Amino acid sequence: MVTKVPGPKSNELLKELNAIQQAGSVQLFSDYRRSLGNYLVDADGNVILDLFTQISSVPLGYNHPALVKAATSPEAVSAMVNRPALGMFPGAEWPSKLKSVLLDVAPVGLKQVTTMACGSCSNENAYKGIFFWYRLKQRKEQGVDVDKTPFSQEDMDSCMVNQPPGAPKLSILSFKGAFHGRTFGALATTHSKPIHKMDVPSFDWPIAPFPLYKYPLHENAAENKKEDDRCLEQVESLMEDWKNKKMPVAGIVVEPIQSEGGDHHASPEFFQRLQAIAKKNGAALLIDEVQTGGGSTGKIWCHEYFNLDSPPDIVTFSKKMSTGGFYHTAEMRPQQSYRIFNTWMGDPSKLLVLESVLGVIKKDKLLENAQVTGEMTLKGIEELQNEFPHLLSAARGRGTFIAMNCPTGRLRDDILSRLRNKGVQLGGCGDSAIRMRPSLVYQPHHANIFLDKFREVLKETN
Amino acid sequence: MVTKVPGPKSNELLKELNAIQQAGSVQLFSDYRRSLGNYLVDADGNVILDLFTQISSVPLGYNHPALVKAATSPEAVSAMVNRPALGMFPGAEWPSKLKSVLLDVAPVGLKQVTTMACGSCSNENAYKGIFFWYRLKQRKEQGVDVDKTPFSQEDMDSCMVNQPPGAPKLSILSFKGAFHGRTFGALATTHSKPIHKMDVPSFDWPIAPFPLYKYPLHENAAENKKEDDRCLEQVESLMEDWKNKKMPVAGIVVEPIQSEGGDHHASPEFFQRLQAIAKKNGAALLIDEVQTGGGSTGKIWCHEYFNLDSPPDIVTFSKKMSTGGFYHTAEMRPQQSYRIFNTWMGDPSKLLVLESVLGVIKKDKLLENAQVTGEMTLKGIEELQNEFPHLLSAARGRGTFIAMNCPTGRLRDDILSRLRNKGVQLGGCGDSAIRMRPSLVYQPHHANIFLDKFREVLKETN
Repeated sequence: MVTKVPGPKSNELLKELNAIQQAGSVQLFSDYRRSLGNYLVDADGNVILDLFTQISSVPLGYNHPALVKAATSPEAVSAMVNRPALGMFPGAEWPSKLKSVLLDVAPVGLKQVTTMACGSCSNENAYKGIFFWYRLKQRKEQGVDVDKTPFSQEDMDSCMVNQPPGAPKLSILSFKGAFHGRTFGALATTHSKPIHKMDVPSFDWPIAPFPLYKYPLHENAAENKKEDDRCLEQVESLMEDWKNKKMPVAGIVVEPIQSEGGDHHASPEFFQRLQAIAKKNGAALLIDEVQTGGGSTGKIWCHEYFNLDSPPDIVTFSKKMSTGGFYHTAEMRPQQSYRIFNTWMGDPSKLLVLESVLGVIKKDKLLENAQVTGEMTLKGIEELQNEFPHLLSAARGRGTFIAMNCPTGRLRDDILSRLRNKGVQLGGCGDSAIRMRPSLVYQPHHANIFLDKFREVLKETN
Repeated sequence: MVTKVPGPKSNELLKELNAIQQAGSVQLFSDYRRSLGNYLVDADGNVILDLFTQISSVPLGYNHPALVKAATSPEAVSAMVNRPALGMFPGAEWPSKLKSVLLDVAPVGLKQVTTMACGSCSNENAYKGIFFWYRLKQRKEQGVDVDKTPFSQEDMDSCMVNQPPGAPKLSILSFKGAFHGRTFGALATTHSKPIHKMDVPSFDWPIAPFPLYKYPLHENAAENKKEDDRCLEQVESLMEDWKNKKMPVAGIVVEPIQSEGGDHHASPEFFQRLQAIAKKNGAALLIDEVQTGGGSTGKIWCHEYFNLDSPPDIVTFSKKMSTGGFYHTAEMRPQQSYRIFNTWMGDPSKLLVLESVLGVIKKDKLLENAQVTGEMTLKGIEELQNEFPHLLSAARGRGTFIAMNCPTGRLRDDILSRLRNKGVQLGGCGDSAIRMRPSLVYQPHHANIFLDKFREVLKETN
């Protein structure tokens, strides 16, 4: 470390940026060309072990040679200078690329995939898909010949002026503490922090409690099981309420681990029972893997840990997957074209990045690495938790997707800031949690560096 | 032309793609590496003069040498392999890049800029910015000390459960025939085609008529002026209605030329008066330049033609600008950080593309080219319109942003399909309009090729 973070150069650049946009969220300025692997170099020349990796979005660290090679290929150059409207004029290689890259890692049972530009618009379009599917079911139940007359004249006229039945009174059930994005549809299901939602008109959609477990889990099994019961009862009762309100729940959206909201985990049984409730009520289950997907939990998809009876109806992704998008079942496929559509429909250059990322994950066994390094990191944190029980609690995680709680948000922020001044970047989430989001090339020796520095900081805080 | 379009290879690829996603909107598969300038080469080897350019999103044609050079620079490679979370850890070069690229072409008077990934999320975030601004004004009017207590506890609690006052009952006024995107907020202001909106829950926001002019303009000035009056009266009366409904209009969103909706133009006076109405009612004016921005109208921003009394409050962009985003006045800047925010906040690699594009526009005088080539193209279409008055009407445009009407949608589609089989790709918009959206390197000799082929097709249709 050369300076405190942010250093004088970062501060100077912040002034410059802040003159042209609200830049209060900027933490430091980076020198990406000098950054390498797990190490981010900032504008002041500080070399920082980055365990937050651009809000959990960097799969292989900085300047990975395989990615640099992919980025300089003629294919990549063409993708960058000839960005197509993928919904109308895809390149000839696009279908096989989707198959060899995205379908190769598809969640079991989901053989349809659509690309998007980011996580928020992946969720937005997934919600639309859910509403299409739900209304199709309704029309069939009403005896409409949907092949002959997919939409009534009333549907056509009313949707154009934002009124039912064409713009139906339907809802998506989400959870307290959830984060699914910040555009209007996604934001209506986000409930992690007031600053995300303040002053934005929204939909009157149901919001259920998400389990808040006691740790360590093995000592609190009975109580945590009761917490599952409580939350799932609320889900059922809200679905009943909204049916009576004439705004039935067409789908349930849930994160496998509530990330922005504070790294709240729920048991496989919770998700199995949630899926059963969705099915019983004719609602779709959307699992939002935008932050959990891509390998850091030790599996490509975190919901693989849940042993669901059948595949979720939709799985959304972005961040570490480089491209946004969603997988879904055949039943969730829109009957008509131009319903899930926009100009670009994602970006082929991002699929080339992902292709390279997945190749490295396989070759270098990075899922196994996430499991092994995650396990030893969590064990180290548990030891620190025993040593500093007044500072840390509820250490938890899957793979390297790890978090722990501090007594207060202020203390958490103080610890994070001092860790950064010792050269380790982590993130906060929820009210007072610390989250680790290292890249997939984070290995045991990086864990040791982190644990040493963490212990120093905790000792100083003591 | 080697085959009909789509040819056998495109059809084969379509089958492959359609097996994994709803691909009914795909027109053909392209061979981008063989495409050059104005010419798109398809998978069957057909060489097509592309005057639609990926739904109006290609600025300099295919494989422009300046872009290829930019894409292979070390800067571009780094941007591709190290995609940052721009709101937290921007690269050191980011502030000066925003200034030298985006602010260099900023609409007069708009000195704040924020990047986004696409047009839809640019509008979504612009709407959020409008609501923030409007609520801030309201709080100040109510005598709240907004620096000390920006939000009340009631605001904080209610926004988290999607209820007022935190999630306020406010609206955005949009126009019939408008297109502003397909995510939930943007879609609530889109009213171009039922298939865009069907089955998606929406907001009860006001929708005003947009002028539908008679052509040629110079023969219908008095009548068109009346049409302006009619629409603007409706705007005012809807704003009054929604105020009485307790869902006041916080902003008005309008395209300088309604593009997807059918290339509907309105007079500078219409926009001047619309701005005056917005100001009078304390609403913001957002001009959506996603399709019109970037040079094809002969100016970087189409609204430059309107001689507005003062700058619009917000201008959104994407498509030809390579990156999404929006400019706004100092008044529209959020007071707090993390309100306009997402993981990536755009993509630096797209700004590098734009930097190169703007350099070529300047060096090769492509705005002048769009004016000259546009004028001769429009003149040629007017001649064809005189020759085939039963097939073409209402030829109109600014620069190369040109359209004309056919008697029916079916006839329009037939003409477009036959033009494509002669090697010219155009687009449709609205019920029965043909739209031209060539890139900025479209020149008089391409216009001559197009006009010749067009004449052939019209003759055959005769």
